[in-house]
Amino acid sequence: MLKVGLLGAGRIGHVHAVNIAGHMRSQLVAVSDVHQEAARTLADRHGAEARTSDAILNDPDIDAALIATSTDTHSDLIEAAARAGKAVLCEKPVDLSLERARACLRSVQNLGVPVMIGFNRRFDANFAGLKTSLRAGDIGRPELLSITSFDPAPPPVDYVKVSGGLFRDMMIHDFDMSNFIMDAMPVSVHAVGSSIVDPAIGAAGDVDTAVVTLTYADGRLAVIKNSRRAVYGYDQRVELLGSDGLLQAGNMLENTVVRSTATGVVSGKPTYFFLERYMAAYAAEWDAFLAACLDGAPVPVTLADGIAALAMAEAATESARTGRTVPVPG
Amino acid sequence: MLKVGLLGAGRIGHVHAVNIAGHMRSQLVAVSDVHQEAARTLADRHGAEARTSDAILNDPDIDAALIATSTDTHSDLIEAAARAGKAVLCEKPVDLSLERARACLRSVQNLGVPVMIGFNRRFDANFAGLKTSLRAGDIGRPELLSITSFDPAPPPVDYVKVSGGLFRDMMIHDFDMSNFIMDAMPVSVHAVGSSIVDPAIGAAGDVDTAVVTLTYADGRLAVIKNSRRAVYGYDQRVELLGSDGLLQAGNMLENTVVRSTATGVVSGKPTYFFLERYMAAYAAEWDAFLAACLDGAPVPVTLADGIAALAMAEAATESARTGRTVPVPG
Amino acid sequence: MLKVGLLGAGRIGHVHAVNIAGHMRSQLVAVSDVHQEAARTLADRHGAEARTSDAILNDPDIDAALIATSTDTHSDLIEAAARAGKAVLCEKPVDLSLERARACLRSVQNLGVPVMIGFNRRFDANFAGLKTSLRAGDIGRPELLSITSFDPAPPPVDYVKVSGGLFRDMMIHDFDMSNFIMDAMPVSVHAVGSSIVDPAIGAAGDVDTAVVTLTYADGRLAVIKNSRRAVYGYDQRVELLGSDGLLQAGNMLENTVVRSTATGVVSGKPTYFFLERYMAAYAAEWDAFLAACLDGAPVPVTLADGIAALAMAEAATESARTGRTVPVPG
Amino acid sequence: MLKVGLLGAGRIGHVHAVNIAGHMRSQLVAVSDVHQEAARTLADRHGAEARTSDAILNDPDIDAALIATSTDTHSDLIEAAARAGKAVLCEKPVDLSLERARACLRSVQNLGVPVMIGFNRRFDANFAGLKTSLRAGDIGRPELLSITSFDPAPPPVDYVKVSGGLFRDMMIHDFDMSNFIMDAMPVSVHAVGSSIVDPAIGAAGDVDTAVVTLTYADGRLAVIKNSRRAVYGYDQRVELLGSDGLLQAGNMLENTVVRSTATGVVSGKPTYFFLERYMAAYAAEWDAFLAACLDGAPVPVTLADGIAALAMAEAATESARTGRTVPVPG
Repeated sequence: MLKVGLLGAGRIGHVHAVNIAGHMRSQLVAVSDVHQEAARTLADRHGAEARTSDAILNDPDIDAALIATSTDTHSDLIEAAARAGKAVLCEKPVDLSLERARACLRSVQNLGVPVMIGFNRRFDANFAGLKTSLRAGDIGRPELLSITSFDPAPPPVDYVKVSGGLFRDMMIHDFDMSNFIMDAMPVSVHAVGSSIVDPAIGAAGDVDTAVVTLTYADGRLAVIKNSRRAVYGYDQRVELLGSDGLLQAGNMLENTVVRSTATGVVSGKPTYFFLERYMAAYAAEWDAFLAACLDGAPVPVTLADGIAALAMAEAATESARTGRTVPVPG
Repeated sequence: MLKVGLLGAGRIGHVHAVNIAGHMRSQLVAVSDVHQEAARTLADRHGAEARTSDAILNDPDIDAALIATSTDTHSDLIEAAARAGKAVLCEKPVDLSLERARACLRSVQNLGVPVMIGFNRRFDANFAGLKTSLRAGDIGRPELLSITSFDPAPPPVDYVKVSGGLFRDMMIHDFDMSNFIMDAMPVSVHAVGSSIVDPAIGAAGDVDTAVVTLTYADGRLAVIKNSRRAVYGYDQRVELLGSDGLLQAGNMLENTVVRSTATGVVSGKPTYFFLERYMAAYAAEWDAFLAACLDGAPVPVTLADGIAALAMAEAATESARTGRTVPVPG
Repeated sequence: MLKVGLLGAGRIGHVHAVNIAGHMRSQLVAVSDVHQEAARTLADRHGAEARTSDAILNDPDIDAALIATSTDTHSDLIEAAARAGKAVLCEKPVDLSLERARACLRSVQNLGVPVMIGFNRRFDANFAGLKTSLRAGDIGRPELLSITSFDPAPPPVDYVKVSGGLFRDMMIHDFDMSNFIMDAMPVSVHAVGSSIVDPAIGAAGDVDTAVVTLTYADGRLAVIKNSRRAVYGYDQRVELLGSDGLLQAGNMLENTVVRSTATGVVSGKPTYFFLERYMAAYAAEWDAFLAACLDGAPVPVTLADGIAALAMAEAATESARTGRTVPVPG
Repeated sequence: MLKVGLLGAGRIGHVHAVNIAGHMRSQLVAVSDVHQEAARTLADRHGAEARTSDAILNDPDIDAALIATSTDTHSDLIEAAARAGKAVLCEKPVDLSLERARACLRSVQNLGVPVMIGFNRRFDANFAGLKTSLRAGDIGRPELLSITSFDPAPPPVDYVKVSGGLFRDMMIHDFDMSNFIMDAMPVSVHAVGSSIVDPAIGAAGDVDTAVVTLTYADGRLAVIKNSRRAVYGYDQRVELLGSDGLLQAGNMLENTVVRSTATGVVSGKPTYFFLERYMAAYAAEWDAFLAACLDGAPVPVTLADGIAALAMAEAATESARTGRTVPVPG
C-alpha cells in the first residue's frame, strides 16, 4: 500500500485523485494546492487531508508525491520530493527550460527513488497495443512513422502566452510517442508552423498548426502533425509503416451507433478531449507507477525520457523559427 | 446517500459491489451470501459487513437491496425486501416461472417502493444511443428489428440443465431489448432452435442456436438470433430498419489497432464477454437506480418489464417445442 | 468465340448486351424484343442485327440465347432455344409456376445443351469471396446464416400485381443465395410478411417486409430479411456463423470519402441499386457462362437451382399466408 | 465521335485502348509503338491499324493523339501532335527536364488545341469526391493536407536509374494532387528522403521513402509521404483538415468480406496496384478529355498543371539533396 500526497488540485489533479484513491494498492493521504479551498474540496471527497506541499513532503509517512502543479514548479518539486525520499510521478513537461530540466535530472539521479514523468499516452490501450504488435514483429522493421494529434479547440490566448509554445506544450506528447515507438531519438528535426486557426495565437508569438519531420540515424523517418482545432473532437492517431506491413492506432468513438439515411451514413465522433480519451490510460499509468514503487519494476517513463522530448521540442521551436533543419543532441 | 445491502457475492455481485461502493451517492453497508466466506471477502474489500440476508432486510438503516442471488430465490427476496420497505434492484430473470413472477408483481405493486430489474443492456451506451436516435426521429417509423446476440462459448451442461433453457436464460435479454426498442409487446412469437454447437446441450433438452421471429399488432417485425458460441468473442448487435433509414449498434472492440500485412488487414476482436462489454452499462444502471430511489425518477426497468420478457421466453420455448407460432398474452 | 442472340432489349438486356459485345470470347449477333424499335436501337449500338426471336432461334450460326424477356415467356423460350441446340442463359425466375418450371426441366434435361439461370449475386465478388472463405474452412462448419436484402424503394403497385409476390420476385435471389452458401435445401420454411412500407402493396395482396426462417436437416438454421424500402440505398449483406468464426459480406459504397464535422462522421452510402452494385457480377456471370459453353466447365447455376429457389418461394408464400411452417419437398 | 491515334502500346497503352475503343464517343483508329509487334497486337484486338507515330500524326482524319510512350519522347510528341492540329492527352510526366517542359508549353500554348496531362488520380471517385465535398464547403477553409502514397513493391533498380528519381517519377502524382486539392502552388518545399527499403536504390542515387512538407503563402501546410513498399498493397489516401472538419479519402478494398475468428478480425486488403485502383479513374479521365475535345469543356488538367508538379518535384529533389527548404518559383 503506497501512501500518496497529491500536489495540485486542478483538473488533472482530480483525475489522479480518483485513481490513487480507487486503487487497491494506494491511499490518498493529503492534497495541496495554491488555492487552499481547492485542496480541501478534493481532499474531502476522498477522505484525505488538505495540507501545504511542504507539510506533505516533510511527512515521513508519505511514500510518494504526485506532482500536478503548474509547469514552472515541476523541477523544484521533483528535487524537493526526491530529496525527501519520496517516489515521484510528475506531470509533463519536466520544465520549459531544457537546461533546468537537465539540472533537475543531475540532482535526483543518484537519490535512488523512482521518478516517473506522466506521458499518459504510452498507457493508452491503442498505442500500447500498436507497440506490442511492433515488438511482436508483426510488421518487421519500422520505416516511416506518422503521428496525428489534433485538439478539439484552441486554448485561451492567455494560456498560449505562458505555455512555452505549441512544440513544448502540445507536441511534446508526440515527441515522447515517437521515442516510445521508434526506441530512438532522431538526429535532426525540421518544423514548420503556422497560425492559421487563430491569428491571435500568431500575434502571441506561437503557432497553432505544425508539421515536424524527424530523421533517424539509420534512415527511418517520422512526421508529426498538430493542430489546435479539430471541430469533430480529439483526433489522436499513430501509423507506422514497416518492412512487412502497416500498423494503425485510431480514435475511440463515443459509441458504435451507425445511422444510414437518405443523406448519408453517420457514425459516432471521436471522444471529445483528453479526459474522455485517456481516462483509462491515466489509470493504467498509475498502475504502472505502483508497480515501479512496490514491485521494483523499471520506471516506464523516466526523467530522461521527459528531457529527451523537451530537447526535441526545443529543436522544433528553433527550426520553425529559422526555417532550418536542426540537429538533436545525441 | 443510499445505504445498500448486497444479497449475493458471486461474479455479478462483485461487479455491483464496485459500483455501489464507488458511487458518490451510495454506500455498501452489508453483503450476504450462502457461502459466508464469499460474503466476508467481498464485504472486507469495500469496508462493509458480512451478514445474513435476513439481517440485511431487517436493518432499518438499510435503504435498498441489490439481489444478485440464484434465480430461484429472486421472487421470494423481492417480496421480502419490498415488504421491509427496501428499494430493490434484482438481477434478471425475475423467475423461471411466469406464474410465480406474476404473483410477485401482485405482492409488491402497491408497496410504494421502487423495484427495478437488472436488464443491464438498456444502459449500454451503444443500445441507449440507438434508442435516443430512434426517439429523435432519425429513421422515422420503425419497421424491422434485428438482434444478434452470441455468447463466446457455451456454458457447462450442468448449468444448462437448471437454466430454464436458452430462451429464458439467454434470449430473455433480447426479448427485453426488443420491448425497449419497439415500445410494445409482440402479438405472436415463432421460434426454431437447434443443438448444433454441442450435442450434450441437446441431450439435456435445450438448444444452443435459435432464431425467433416476433410479429407486432401494427405489422412491424423483429428477428432475434442467438448462439451459445462465437469463438471471436461476445457478439451483441442491434439493427433497426425504419421508414427513413437504418440504425445499427455494434460491438465494442479490444482496441483500435489495425494491422495490414501481406496476409490481410487485421483489426481488434469484440471484447470477450459481458463483463468486458457491459462494465460501463452496469455502472449506468446503478446510477439510474439511484435516480429512481433518490430523485423520484421513474424506475427505468420495472418488474412488469421483467414479466413481459419472461412471457415472451415462455412463448418462444413452446413455439420451438411445437413448431407452431404462439400468441403472446396482451 | 460464342455467337449470341439476345432475347429482350429492356434494362437488363442492355446490361447483358454490353457484356456480350465487350467480351473477347463472345459476339452479339442479334437482338429481339416485343418492341422492335427497342431491339433495333440496342442492336445498332453494338453492331448487331434486330430480328424476331424465332429468327434468332432458327439461325444455325447462333450458338447461344440469352433470355431477358418477361418472366411469363421464360419456360417456353428455354425449351425452344434448347431444342434448337442453343446454349441458354435465362434471367431469373424460371417461371412463376413451379409445375411449369419442372416441366421445362424435364423437356430440356436430356438435350445436352448448357442451361444456366441468371442468379447474378453468386458472382458478386463479396458473396463469392465469402463462399471461397467458407470452402477454405476459415470458419469451420456453418451453423447460422443471415441474409439481409433491402431494395432502395418499392416498385410500382402495377408491377407488384404481376410479380408473383415478394417471395417469388425478390426473395428468390436470397433463396438461391442460401442454397449457394449452405450447399443444401432446407427441410422447412417459416415466413411472416407485412405491408408496412406501402399499404397499397397490401391491398394488392402482397407484402413489402418479410422475415423467413429456414431449417436444415442437420440442424443448421438460416434467416432471410427483405424490405422493399431502404432509403439509404440497396442493402445486400450476408453473414454466416460457423463453429470457428463468422463471415460477413457487406455493401459496396459510393466512395471512400469520410467527412468528420461537429455534427458527426459521415461516410458514403451503399451503391444505389442492383445495376450499380452488381454490374461487375453480371460481367463475371457472363464469363462463367462462356466457360461452361466453350471450355466444358460445369454450369454454375443450373435450371434445377432455379427450381429449388422457386420451390422455397412457393413454400414461403404458403407459410406467410397460413402462419404455419411449411415443409420443402426434398 | 473522336478519331484517336494511340502512341505507345505498353501496359498503360492497353488501358487507354480499352477506354478509347469502348467509349460511345471515340474510335481507336491506329496504334504505334517502337515495337511494331506490340502495336499490331493491340491494334488487332480493337479493330484498329498498326502504324508509325508519324503516319498517325500526319493523318488528317485523326482528331486526337494519346501519348503513352516513354517519358523522354513526351515533349517532342506533344509538340508534333499539337502542330498537326491534334488534341493531345499525354501521360505524366511532361518531361524530366523542367526547362524542356516549359519550352514545350511555349510551343503549343497558342495553337488552339486541347492539351491534357494524364494525372489520372484527379478522376478517382474517392479523391474527386473529397474535392467535391471541399468545394461544397463541408469543412470550411482547408488548413492542413496529408497525402499518403505507397506503392506495393519497389520497381527494378534499372528502372529507378532512368526514372528521374522518386520525386519526379512517383511523388509527382502527389504534387499534382496537392495542387488539385489546395488550388494553389506552395511557396516552399522541404523534403527528406531515405533508401531504407532497398539499399540498391540508394546506391543508384535515389530514395525509396520520403516525407515532403509544403508551405503555402496563406499559412496552409501540406505533407506528402511516399514509400516504394507497402506489402499489403497500393496505399493511396488523402486527408484534409479544415476549419470546420476533416475530409478523408481512403483505399478501395478487394472485397467487403470480413472474417472473425479466434485469432482476429480480418478484412480485405487494398486493391493491389494502380491498374486495379485506378481503372475506373482512367475511364473517367478519358470521358473528361472527350468533353474537352467535343463539347468545349475546359481542359481539366493542363500542360501548365504538369509543369507545376514538375517544378515541385525539382524543388523537392534539391531539398532532399541539400537539406534546405527550397522556394518554389511563383
